[in-house]
Amino acid sequence: MNSFGRIFRVSIFGESHGPSVGAVVDGCPPGIPLSEDDFEADLSRRRAGGEGTTKRVEPDLPRLESGVFEGRTTGTPILVRFANTDVDSSAYDSIRFTPRPGHADFAAQHRSGRAADCRGGGHFSGRLTVALVAAGVIAKKVILPARAEAEVTEAGGAKDPGSTAREAAADGDSIGGVVECRVTGLPIGLGEPFFDSAESVIGHLAFAIPGVKAIEFGVGFVSARMRGSAYNDAIVDANGRTATNNAGGLNGGLTNGNEVVFRVAVRPTASIAKPQKTIDLRSGDSATISVAGRHDACIALRVPVILEAVAAIAFADLVLISKAMASQRGKE
Amino acid sequence: MNSFGRIFRVSIFGESHGPSVGAVVDGCPPGIPLSEDDFEADLSRRRAGGEGTTKRVEPDLPRLESGVFEGRTTGTPILVRFANTDVDSSAYDSIRFTPRPGHADFAAQHRSGRAADCRGGGHFSGRLTVALVAAGVIAKKVILPARAEAEVTEAGGAKDPGSTAREAAADGDSIGGVVECRVTGLPIGLGEPFFDSAESVIGHLAFAIPGVKAIEFGVGFVSARMRGSAYNDAIVDANGRTATNNAGGLNGGLTNGNEVVFRVAVRPTASIAKPQKTIDLRSGDSATISVAGRHDACIALRVPVILEAVAAIAFADLVLISKAMASQRGKE
Amino acid sequence: MNSFGRIFRVSIFGESHGPSVGAVVDGCPPGIPLSEDDFEADLSRRRAGGEGTTKRVEPDLPRLESGVFEGRTTGTPILVRFANTDVDSSAYDSIRFTPRPGHADFAAQHRSGRAADCRGGGHFSGRLTVALVAAGVIAKKVILPARAEAEVTEAGGAKDPGSTAREAAADGDSIGGVVECRVTGLPIGLGEPFFDSAESVIGHLAFAIPGVKAIEFGVGFVSARMRGSAYNDAIVDANGRTATNNAGGLNGGLTNGNEVVFRVAVRPTASIAKPQKTIDLRSGDSATISVAGRHDACIALRVPVILEAVAAIAFADLVLISKAMASQRGKE
Amino acid sequence: MNSFGRIFRVSIFGESHGPSVGAVVDGCPPGIPLSEDDFEADLSRRRAGGEGTTKRVEPDLPRLESGVFEGRTTGTPILVRFANTDVDSSAYDSIRFTPRPGHADFAAQHRSGRAADCRGGGHFSGRLTVALVAAGVIAKKVILPARAEAEVTEAGGAKDPGSTAREAAADGDSIGGVVECRVTGLPIGLGEPFFDSAESVIGHLAFAIPGVKAIEFGVGFVSARMRGSAYNDAIVDANGRTATNNAGGLNGGLTNGNEVVFRVAVRPTASIAKPQKTIDLRSGDSATISVAGRHDACIALRVPVILEAVAAIAFADLVLISKAMASQRGKE
Repeated sequence: MNSFGRIFRVSIFGESHGPSVGAVVDGCPPGIPLSEDDFEADLSRRRAGGEGTTKRVEPDLPRLESGVFEGRTTGTPILVRFANTDVDSSAYDSIRFTPRPGHADFAAQHRSGRAADCRGGGHFSGRLTVALVAAGVIAKKVILPARAEAEVTEAGGAKDPGSTAREAAADGDSIGGVVECRVTGLPIGLGEPFFDSAESVIGHLAFAIPGVKAIEFGVGFVSARMRGSAYNDAIVDANGRTATNNAGGLNGGLTNGNEVVFRVAVRPTASIAKPQKTIDLRSGDSATISVAGRHDACIALRVPVILEAVAAIAFADLVLISKAMASQRGKE
Repeated sequence: MNSFGRIFRVSIFGESHGPSVGAVVDGCPPGIPLSEDDFEADLSRRRAGGEGTTKRVEPDLPRLESGVFEGRTTGTPILVRFANTDVDSSAYDSIRFTPRPGHADFAAQHRSGRAADCRGGGHFSGRLTVALVAAGVIAKKVILPARAEAEVTEAGGAKDPGSTAREAAADGDSIGGVVECRVTGLPIGLGEPFFDSAESVIGHLAFAIPGVKAIEFGVGFVSARMRGSAYNDAIVDANGRTATNNAGGLNGGLTNGNEVVFRVAVRPTASIAKPQKTIDLRSGDSATISVAGRHDACIALRVPVILEAVAAIAFADLVLISKAMASQRGKE
Repeated sequence: MNSFGRIFRVSIFGESHGPSVGAVVDGCPPGIPLSEDDFEADLSRRRAGGEGTTKRVEPDLPRLESGVFEGRTTGTPILVRFANTDVDSSAYDSIRFTPRPGHADFAAQHRSGRAADCRGGGHFSGRLTVALVAAGVIAKKVILPARAEAEVTEAGGAKDPGSTAREAAADGDSIGGVVECRVTGLPIGLGEPFFDSAESVIGHLAFAIPGVKAIEFGVGFVSARMRGSAYNDAIVDANGRTATNNAGGLNGGLTNGNEVVFRVAVRPTASIAKPQKTIDLRSGDSATISVAGRHDACIALRVPVILEAVAAIAFADLVLISKAMASQRGKE
Repeated sequence: MNSFGRIFRVSIFGESHGPSVGAVVDGCPPGIPLSEDDFEADLSRRRAGGEGTTKRVEPDLPRLESGVFEGRTTGTPILVRFANTDVDSSAYDSIRFTPRPGHADFAAQHRSGRAADCRGGGHFSGRLTVALVAAGVIAKKVILPARAEAEVTEAGGAKDPGSTAREAAADGDSIGGVVECRVTGLPIGLGEPFFDSAESVIGHLAFAIPGVKAIEFGVGFVSARMRGSAYNDAIVDANGRTATNNAGGLNGGLTNGNEVVFRVAVRPTASIAKPQKTIDLRSGDSATISVAGRHDACIALRVPVILEAVAAIAFADLVLISKAMASQRGKE
């Protein structure tokens, strides 16, 4: 549903064309320095996206409305809120009756009945990821000195995302991409079996990012074609360092002391100018639509900072749980 | 941690070499016919695995110890328990001090300190999946008339898993594989944004299966190389049927009325007879080990029925939540 | 922590003297009519309190910032937000160093360290109950046609709360009170064993109201002095109607078809003008303080509408869970 | 539902007349010494109950079936299981059709339909509290050096529970009672606002004990009749020690460094030999029943050790959460 995490717990609210979007972060330890300025770097990375990203420009001014006092977290819920300002709902009626291929329009109307808010994708819009990035800024502070860094490794099958996206946009089309994230500096043993393996928690959050359709850890799908003698990472020192990192830093769902590495596939932007076939729900007849609006040609370009947020939120929760679980060590 | 699900909630307990493993299933609606015989078909599929699976043979007799009365579920927690009988812990000391590459041994000892139970993988063992399969048997009844079916689509890079696995075993080696699952007959609109997209819930559970390192929905990683005009599935009728199914039956995290399709990559079995490099934690010196024991050459062969369980558990929960959320329909 | 509920899930944020307080309500079914006007009746009941309530007057204008579209809930998270405007933090330093008896000041500083925000009670302030009342307005719609009604049954040991409170206020003192809530029209069988008995869920929420120190169902503490032959409620018809209602409408943690009745004790307002003994944390010396500020003489007077909210939130969740659990009935 | 707790998480399963009852405890830190012998003292206190307790005698042999290795907890889920042996279901049909006043029979059949297992109270039986006591034994170790101690303070309105119960039993009747619990040695600041005040968590668990109908902290209901100047506990030293303890050691939902004190009211045993009015659900006619069976005359006599378990489970979770939340202290 709209919240995730056991201790470090993030709730997301908002719709693309509603008054505001944001996140409530519960379970953040007290005493962490935090101000509205801390959000700017990551928010601008998400906003910029680069060539081939939407012309909708939100100023994305984060308001810290609770849980912070005199520049530090207080240990009570933190509300980060963004007012929506640049809203253009003119395309609304067409969405309602001629659902856009690749979008949630059709399924969302089944879920919510005629009460569905499909304007700009509603709650299913990529706009919501601004809240995820904001929660990630806080999470990144919790996992320090560990750090997450992500980048686009390919887009539309090519290594130069910018020019490939520009080409697709010129055709009224869009492209997908792959984003890779690396997390360094984590303690060994993070992850909570049976269900909360590190892969499970990261995967759960990553698939909340609109457009993500696949995730793999370490060599991922390639592992299916390997033999164990080649796949297994030889352990080379008492800190668990391995000669290779095919497992992406995770064994048995736990961090093993090596860099955590994972990649997601982001499908092409669903909204394209090119004509597409759909159905008119009023008549049941076939229809052809072209989605005008202001859309990214390649949403993968915005995903790196969102994927870092996902990694940071996942490990913030696992780090805090591990602190609780380690609390009896002194008593042994 | 050890439980998953909001309404249909599964808790898993046990260790490979402890007295028992099993699951407690909470939130199962009352009135569903259920007996110990219902588990046999799926349990034997998991057990059989086929050529290249372990020689450890557990009878896997499920005991329904609560939540069932006169052949029907009562709406109270269901305990399904399996006694462990065929336990051979002789290899224990070597695991403790010379952690096996590709296994959780090293990380688990960091997590639990000297209290870790690494015998046969302990709580991280594939043995635990018997409990997942058992929970899946119950979940499959909850999602009726929807059905999940999975199969191995490749192993070790080849299409014939049996012979490929036999070859690897003869070399004292192991292979990975890919398992694909298809779910038909689901209602439209299942999935709970923002965090509980169908992909999120399935992904979370799938990564709890030991050895799973990747998951993709629909065309998955291939989508990253496509253009939107090719990727988007044209909607062809008022039930949401699409001309293609690149999205794997899921838009915006919700079921869209088409078949749900996903694939996981299973890494090669970590335990192999071939010598591997590790570290002796007592001395800090490099060591070479060969993992004898009774191990599958290809754990992917056992995964289909486990992946079906994962799909069924995920959708059992989402179906029950959707019933709750639909409860106001009559009042509108 | 800051959220409660399995399906109908309420998260509360804010501090007394921060920019805003509010609630995010997740899991509310789509299609329920809801507008900002719907909140006014209950908010004004909380605000009015009557004689002996604080002079702090917040306009309490609820802003529905997500989850509502064209006058109906959409099935996505609902944010109800209140801007704080009438903030007077002048008494802050004295709170920090000379913790007020009966308040959370001392304990909160241990929990949060020097990061604690104690202005006006911070997150522990009665101000937060405005968010609870707002969530209750939504919950009341979910449980329709069931209804919750509460009233003050005694205050300061007397039946006339107004005059008793006025007297206490004239002395620079405060009084406690008892508030009783009755819920009619509920379906039979609500409650989820083992842990989520109706009493458990209501009790959990009731003790989140600042100042509540006791709760009893039906005859409550009096039952401890009764014999079973007098206590047991004779069942008089096939709808479960009982001749008496000593159990307060709940057997085995489940609604039994009779009116649900419970009472809470609200301690006297902690902030009083009369001098009280505390400690100066800077010097460790004894100190005497008089809490000026603008405080209710009897917070119990505000509690009825808050207690109704608690009852409605509890049963909204239990009703929705029961819908999910009943979903297999047709299949039997 | 059947599980409770955020980190230290207890799941209860079983029915009075099923094969077994027990608990799965997740989130227990590794390294805590634990053996089956550790349970005997508390289990025998529950079993003994004293005069006026049931003649059903279960040996109550706890089996630790997972989560413990070489005498210490491993940090994975702990299953404690009790086989039911002394089962007498002869009274079953009468329960089904003529529901017992004061019992869950009627409501449980509405919840579960004809699938309800009412034998001996089924999942609603006091038998389940053996699992709560077992989880409490583990929790008591987690909260060390804090300790919980409970006792019966009155029964049937008299101070001598034994003789009062004997008298009632001779009349074919039963009595209620009050049980008080005191917890010493807790750290300051435990409790998680807004919803998880210490009172909320303890209250939630206490109302899961069959028969508990009221709970009060400190002076509880008496506070409603006091003035603030008398109720407020003057702070007398820098450790927060107070001159009185009217608040029962809790301010703002947080432990304040003083003894935590609370009391519950336990209604009289519902099963009595005296004739009682009920309804025959087959005919809709009035009926008179006398509940034979083997029942306690005063279940309050068994509650002290169960209430200690409740207190220990509540604080085990709050202690572990506080460890997580304190984890940033060193970084400030």
